[in-house]
Amino acid sequence: MSKNSIDLNCDMGESFGAWRMGNDEELLQYVSSANIACGFHASDPATMKQTVRLALRSGVAVGAHPGLPDLAGFGRREMAVSGEEVCDLVVYQIGALAAFAKAEGAKLHHVKPHGALYNMAATNQELAEAIAEAVSKVKPELILYGLAGSELIRAGEKYGIRTASEVFADRTYQQDGTLTPRSQPNALINDHRQAVQQVLRMVQEGTVLSQQGTEVAIKADTICIHGDGPQALPFAIRIRERLTSEGIHISAL
Amino acid sequence: MSKNSIDLNCDMGESFGAWRMGNDEELLQYVSSANIACGFHASDPATMKQTVRLALRSGVAVGAHPGLPDLAGFGRREMAVSGEEVCDLVVYQIGALAAFAKAEGAKLHHVKPHGALYNMAATNQELAEAIAEAVSKVKPELILYGLAGSELIRAGEKYGIRTASEVFADRTYQQDGTLTPRSQPNALINDHRQAVQQVLRMVQEGTVLSQQGTEVAIKADTICIHGDGPQALPFAIRIRERLTSEGIHISAL
Amino acid sequence: MSKNSIDLNCDMGESFGAWRMGNDEELLQYVSSANIACGFHASDPATMKQTVRLALRSGVAVGAHPGLPDLAGFGRREMAVSGEEVCDLVVYQIGALAAFAKAEGAKLHHVKPHGALYNMAATNQELAEAIAEAVSKVKPELILYGLAGSELIRAGEKYGIRTASEVFADRTYQQDGTLTPRSQPNALINDHRQAVQQVLRMVQEGTVLSQQGTEVAIKADTICIHGDGPQALPFAIRIRERLTSEGIHISAL
Amino acid sequence: MSKNSIDLNCDMGESFGAWRMGNDEELLQYVSSANIACGFHASDPATMKQTVRLALRSGVAVGAHPGLPDLAGFGRREMAVSGEEVCDLVVYQIGALAAFAKAEGAKLHHVKPHGALYNMAATNQELAEAIAEAVSKVKPELILYGLAGSELIRAGEKYGIRTASEVFADRTYQQDGTLTPRSQPNALINDHRQAVQQVLRMVQEGTVLSQQGTEVAIKADTICIHGDGPQALPFAIRIRERLTSEGIHISAL
Repeated sequence: MSKNSIDLNCDMGESFGAWRMGNDEELLQYVSSANIACGFHASDPATMKQTVRLALRSGVAVGAHPGLPDLAGFGRREMAVSGEEVCDLVVYQIGALAAFAKAEGAKLHHVKPHGALYNMAATNQELAEAIAEAVSKVKPELILYGLAGSELIRAGEKYGIRTASEVFADRTYQQDGTLTPRSQPNALINDHRQAVQQVLRMVQEGTVLSQQGTEVAIKADTICIHGDGPQALPFAIRIRERLTSEGIHISAL
Repeated sequence: MSKNSIDLNCDMGESFGAWRMGNDEELLQYVSSANIACGFHASDPATMKQTVRLALRSGVAVGAHPGLPDLAGFGRREMAVSGEEVCDLVVYQIGALAAFAKAEGAKLHHVKPHGALYNMAATNQELAEAIAEAVSKVKPELILYGLAGSELIRAGEKYGIRTASEVFADRTYQQDGTLTPRSQPNALINDHRQAVQQVLRMVQEGTVLSQQGTEVAIKADTICIHGDGPQALPFAIRIRERLTSEGIHISAL
Repeated sequence: MSKNSIDLNCDMGESFGAWRMGNDEELLQYVSSANIACGFHASDPATMKQTVRLALRSGVAVGAHPGLPDLAGFGRREMAVSGEEVCDLVVYQIGALAAFAKAEGAKLHHVKPHGALYNMAATNQELAEAIAEAVSKVKPELILYGLAGSELIRAGEKYGIRTASEVFADRTYQQDGTLTPRSQPNALINDHRQAVQQVLRMVQEGTVLSQQGTEVAIKADTICIHGDGPQALPFAIRIRERLTSEGIHISAL
Repeated sequence: MSKNSIDLNCDMGESFGAWRMGNDEELLQYVSSANIACGFHASDPATMKQTVRLALRSGVAVGAHPGLPDLAGFGRREMAVSGEEVCDLVVYQIGALAAFAKAEGAKLHHVKPHGALYNMAATNQELAEAIAEAVSKVKPELILYGLAGSELIRAGEKYGIRTASEVFADRTYQQDGTLTPRSQPNALINDHRQAVQQVLRMVQEGTVLSQQGTEVAIKADTICIHGDGPQALPFAIRIRERLTSEGIHISAL
């Protein structure tokens, strides 16, 4: 189960018009794949172009990060969308980002849904399959990033797409392998040593220590690095340093 | 100069969410290329998919119809956008539509800017070149539709893109080959026989009779059929019938 | 229980930019109160002004019809909004419409939430109270329209606002007084005579015949007339005629 | 001409959804009136409520800051809008902000158009009068802020509205009293001492030293304090301190 390489992914290009968000240029030095917003929950054409350029310059893999059509809510509010609506909006957003990748001489590498769309696709089979269908229709060579053990990973497999199981450094897990809901205490790991320890175990042993104290098998292909918040950068640096010092190579799949 | 085939193009897919516009299904029987809105001045992912499907079913060439980011104004209000902004928003919109074309098994055929963007690109060299640059970066094989004799046609040539010079059946021309501004009387041709006559002369002789009574040379690769208004459909039918009866084939370039 | 007057309300001003919806001018002849969209699910400043003018000219009461911020979904998709978000967006939309009422010399009369917001407020106490709170803060003299027997009516009462219980002519009811869900057969009444009959019983006897065959008490202050669909106008005419012929006066509360 | 009090105004509430802009809480300690964005070029209902609350708590006058409908361009791109469109969108935005003022127990004090709308209204009589008309229809008691000597000030006077002539600390002036266009060198004053000096002369003597070296009469009712940029806060502090030390009271009109 021990891996000698792992992907670190981070959401990027989430500025919008005159508004800035995140510290993309700095973070690009520490991650291996960038999930770039596509204009529905954040970003705009100029930001997409600029972010693709920055990622390319840093040798970071470029992925689409499609979201719900909700700028005011940053794509974090669940919406009652049908499978067909989700398929259409993922097709649209992949296409838009792919055009910037093409224009800048990059190749699109993966897709990771954003926010509420990611969460809904983790448990809702219809929406998960709608996303996988969109990928399979537009760019079946893309890797679909989804929560480890989720419906989205299953949907990707069903549609014959390569998938990457995503794990979190700063979230705790339940004994069934799901994330502890944010509504519960202990959902978040605030101690960076504990977070790095959890990542290391996931990568080296393929397991996570659940809140119930049991060791649970978990597939870790890519680790989510949060891009916002003051701790984003030091956190990314620490994870990268530790993994590297353990002989684990940081690279996109 | 006489042609034995000509393209009839029409703007399509300009519904938005719950709002309907145009009579796409009917008009697709009479035109040879469809300019499909891409979500900035009109349309949404579901409408784009549906319109690509309809065009494909009717054997009509699928083109992108990018507009200014102004849903409330239907892309008809000029905006002070820079060349770089225009390039980015054309890249974005071509990419989005290309994804639906790919998903539906169609090939993107052309690009025609919409409304205020079309008008600005007719006379503003910077914006015209920004559009041509976007096409050349993302899909250099696309044909760029622009007003005959305009900056946009020149920009396409400069960037080595195939162009199609567009003429109007229902607009009068000045002796310098430009359209009579809408602010002037006689800008519009309301008599359908006169309109059909003008089209015929443009296609067969490569000339138009100007408002000043002179015969002016004009390049006519594609004729714009307006999709809205109660006269849209009968007008399209009449033009197609007359051209066909004169032995001129209606087909995309 | 028998009433000698009743309100007929209809959603209006749901065009957006270049897109038309509904037949407001005609329908205004038959209803007594208009719920005017406020720019979040439909409408724009010009449409709001125009609709207020039309209502004023027809002597129809002007109400605000706030919706979720979802133009592409016409406010029909439920969104995970908090009570505070709902309160804020209702304050905003009432204020915007009130300004047009002021500018045109009309007085705002009522508030009726739209689509998914209406439905959520029927059963979700937090959101219902958020709407009532918004009204009480901005214009406590307004009448709050809500589904008869719903959380929204209760919330209005709790906040000391006048309420109007809304009933439907073309929907069937369950024995607990709720609407038959649209997912079930027999949810809709397609026969206009049956619909008129149901309205008459609601107004004259204060009851409705449920799908279970029982007679259920129902409070009917205002009847919803749907503004879209080809049957909207003939339906409105028939209901108005029948009520009038029974000596029931059509007027806003 | 010497005044013993002056207004310092600042644009505020220009965050949008998850995106932050400006340092409103700090700046509110130094200015006397706040121009609060209304959701068209920036802001959203929650931000408007919060900003009204903050202003109220700081004893700062609350004004509406309506802009063009262009979130992606932050209302800075001129658009070809008609007078009627401008009137409608100003009515809408004043109404929306007035509702939050009402809900929070504040009174709306003034209106200052934003960005491209402000600039267009400085020289375009039709648009200037459209703004004045909107104010006069909805809240004729509001004070209209406009560039000193501009069409907007004239329009306000024509419509019988109180006006406030705005001057800039960090912009140079021409001998005809207009601002040096930004396209020219020396348009901006970067030296804070020179800026403070200019303000003092405007307030105490009612004049400004033009780029041509002549002394030009200028009406200074309110001074614009820019809210963004790293220098915003120290600049506001310096201007306030100097004015106060000269015995000039900082307060809204």
